[in-house]
Amino acid sequence: MLDDTYFMRQALAEAQKAFDKDEVPVGAVVVANNRIIARAHNLVETLNDVTAHAEMQAITAAANVLGGKYLTNCTLYVTIEPCPMCAAALGWSQISRIVYGAGDEKRGYSRLAAGVLHPKTTASYGVLAEECATLMKHFFEKKR
Amino acid sequence: MLDDTYFMRQALAEAQKAFDKDEVPVGAVVVANNRIIARAHNLVETLNDVTAHAEMQAITAAANVLGGKYLTNCTLYVTIEPCPMCAAALGWSQISRIVYGAGDEKRGYSRLAAGVLHPKTTASYGVLAEECATLMKHFFEKKR
Repeated sequence: MLDDTYFMRQALAEAQKAFDKDEVPVGAVVVANNRIIARAHNLVETLNDVTAHAEMQAITAAANVLGGKYLTNCTLYVTIEPCPMCAAALGWSQISRIVYGAGDEKRGYSRLAAGVLHPKTTASYGVLAEECATLMKHFFEKKR
Repeated sequence: MLDDTYFMRQALAEAQKAFDKDEVPVGAVVVANNRIIARAHNLVETLNDVTAHAEMQAITAAANVLGGKYLTNCTLYVTIEPCPMCAAALGWSQISRIVYGAGDEKRGYSRLAAGVLHPKTTASYGVLAEECATLMKHFFEKKR
């Protein structure tokens, strides 16, 4: 069934790819008409680029597929709550909906920059939250 | 003299390039050891990509030049106050200093996401502010 859990599972598969590359394990997919049009995972270390978060790449890739800069009929699934950079980028994209797995109390946009999403964007969270958070926890434990 | 006004003038030259391409006219340069290591201007329309703000490109380009993701000994000059996306990206980059020309009351980070810069980053503004703002004004007048 192509529901939120299905698509978050795909985002988790992207996050696992990041984990396997020793990147902070965050993954994202963009869905339009029940179809995944972009997949991405965090590549900050690989690309030596602080802007290479999963969501940023997913936004750029989805816009390329659609041939326009706005994601007005799309949903972004991302394993961890977006940071203010990514949330503001999602705001510029006018995306209809975002769904994130686990919250990020320290770096998440909802604490630091709650007003940056587009007024028409709806946000929800908690889908596969434990699995999303556990992957992050394992990553940071490995780093210690 | 290689002072703030000199470098902001270079950022303004970038903004003019954006203007000439019918892009919202924002330009940026990154300076390390009194040398410009990256120049960029807004390319959102050209690239069909809402993340292609001048600052985002300047951050990526500067990191490429330096061979590392952090811009800890750099200053970014940008003609208009960064939006929350760009300010948060600058936060991730741990840049030492940002200087912007004109404020942006509606979209600027200082109103929407004041806490996203890195604690070690200093910010100042007002350098060539009138010229920076005038270029924007001309752009939006032309659009009406």
